[in-house]
Amino acid sequence: MTVTLEKIREAQSRIGSHIVETPLHRAHTLERFLGCEVYLKLENMQVTGAFKYRGAISKTLKLSRAERERGIITASSGNHGKALAHGAKELGIRATVVIPDTAPPFKVSAIEQLGAQIVQSNVTERFAVSERLAKENGHTLFHPYDDDDIMAGQGTVGLDLMAQHPSLDTVIVPTSGGGLLGGILTAIKESASGISVLGAEPATLPRYSESLEHGERVKIESRRTIADALVSVQPGARNFPIVQKYADGMLKAEDASILKAMKMLLMEGKILAEPSAAVGLAAVLEGRYVPQKGEKVCFVISGGNVGFDQLGMLENIRYDT
Amino acid sequence: MTVTLEKIREAQSRIGSHIVETPLHRAHTLERFLGCEVYLKLENMQVTGAFKYRGAISKTLKLSRAERERGIITASSGNHGKALAHGAKELGIRATVVIPDTAPPFKVSAIEQLGAQIVQSNVTERFAVSERLAKENGHTLFHPYDDDDIMAGQGTVGLDLMAQHPSLDTVIVPTSGGGLLGGILTAIKESASGISVLGAEPATLPRYSESLEHGERVKIESRRTIADALVSVQPGARNFPIVQKYADGMLKAEDASILKAMKMLLMEGKILAEPSAAVGLAAVLEGRYVPQKGEKVCFVISGGNVGFDQLGMLENIRYDT
Repeated sequence: MTVTLEKIREAQSRIGSHIVETPLHRAHTLERFLGCEVYLKLENMQVTGAFKYRGAISKTLKLSRAERERGIITASSGNHGKALAHGAKELGIRATVVIPDTAPPFKVSAIEQLGAQIVQSNVTERFAVSERLAKENGHTLFHPYDDDDIMAGQGTVGLDLMAQHPSLDTVIVPTSGGGLLGGILTAIKESASGISVLGAEPATLPRYSESLEHGERVKIESRRTIADALVSVQPGARNFPIVQKYADGMLKAEDASILKAMKMLLMEGKILAEPSAAVGLAAVLEGRYVPQKGEKVCFVISGGNVGFDQLGMLENIRYDT
Repeated sequence: MTVTLEKIREAQSRIGSHIVETPLHRAHTLERFLGCEVYLKLENMQVTGAFKYRGAISKTLKLSRAERERGIITASSGNHGKALAHGAKELGIRATVVIPDTAPPFKVSAIEQLGAQIVQSNVTERFAVSERLAKENGHTLFHPYDDDDIMAGQGTVGLDLMAQHPSLDTVIVPTSGGGLLGGILTAIKESASGISVLGAEPATLPRYSESLEHGERVKIESRRTIADALVSVQPGARNFPIVQKYADGMLKAEDASILKAMKMLLMEGKILAEPSAAVGLAAVLEGRYVPQKGEKVCFVISGGNVGFDQLGMLENIRYDT
């Protein structure tokens, strides 16, 4: 299958009773910083604290009884692994999560608490390990983004947006492999809604900006970013063509701006976003996109999974109030 | 006038274009701690970061042209002062805020930035000072809660709740002088909606618990609490009879539980609540109210105005995850 509006609607019916219809909130308190109308789609309030649960439960619910009995597996250190583990627990399925040795302890313990089996792995080998274990044990492998069922689940965010505020002008979506962006683009562009959709990625890992420029999927060098959920080094094979066809632009943001945006979301917006979820606001604060006065701009706040200790990094971050 | 459902509906029409319809969010991530359905009314996302703006702008919009020209005044170190200053700025009215010498600097600077004139005062004399200045200068005095117009504005939270989720079972409301509680009670009980409404106050300042027990407004000793927006020492004269007539109960919570609830709201619920806004959840965590399985319990998150430095007090607060 390929992701289509129809598939996203099917995903929505399937997952409706499992997920939260997260608020689309007009954040008046942020508007004086941006000079436009600001809306936040609060996927940090989704089950498991990130949009990832939409895709994970969407795919899990499609499994046959035989597949459910053989269990599921993924490689993830973060939100996708937690989403998979939570969905598996809800449906009484065994889940295995291959975790790289670089994973932050609070994310590992969240996955463990959900009852998933943890397999430690070297960071560069984690996908190979999960593939090998999937074959050996008959588990169904859940790729975090390069998967049409996962993308269809993430695309339900786009259906929400059009239902909650049909006259939004612009939606800005945190982007890594392209699961969330590809899903939202399909939902919105195939509905011919007229909403402009932009991706936003860390400036240190511009895998989409470079791939779009070259007209093909470029693999970039792995580098560190504070946006620890946006670390893929190449667009997904199924995701890239959708982004190439439909996206109205791709923005970049520096780590320093991401922290500033995260602090503004917390102190002014009163919401806890993880760094990756603040990348779109950060890009606009940097002037990479300049909204018109009165433009209705929606930032997808993709997740809120932050360790309390991490908040310390916001201490010396300043913005003009 | 006395507060009535009709007056609250009038307030709603008056303030509709000035305020945010804040989300009523089902917080799945908090449910495993409480064993019931958990809803949060996110007034921390209201204009000025607290429900107080509803009452302040409601009363300000009722002023005659002559009254607007003479300006408005209040005594407040916190959310009410900020709300008044913001409303005055929106409508081009001069505002004066009498601030006690005990006020936290970040709250004072927020009020100053909104262009209000600041008058410093000894904490015990602040109401007397504001009354004297009101008389001398012809300003209209805005009492923070003991005022029917203010209460009607706060009561619009109750109309929101009934419209956003008509089958809520229980609403728990942070309580100090009784402006928010009195308003919500009037809206909900005069609509005969069947929703149970409880107040929650700091255990160190049980002005309502004691007054309800004695059948009259008791003045208690002033004591410190982390809930710095819930410090009144006596129920309001206009508020008490409403609470006495309609409230289904009054809960208390210790400061330690308030911090625990605040940390849970932040790390699990992904929202920044000020300590005062967490008092209802704190009371339930203490077992002062035990919801039934499946009961739909809504906590009014009354505000989110916290200084970044204050978050440090959550560092060593633990809860079972």
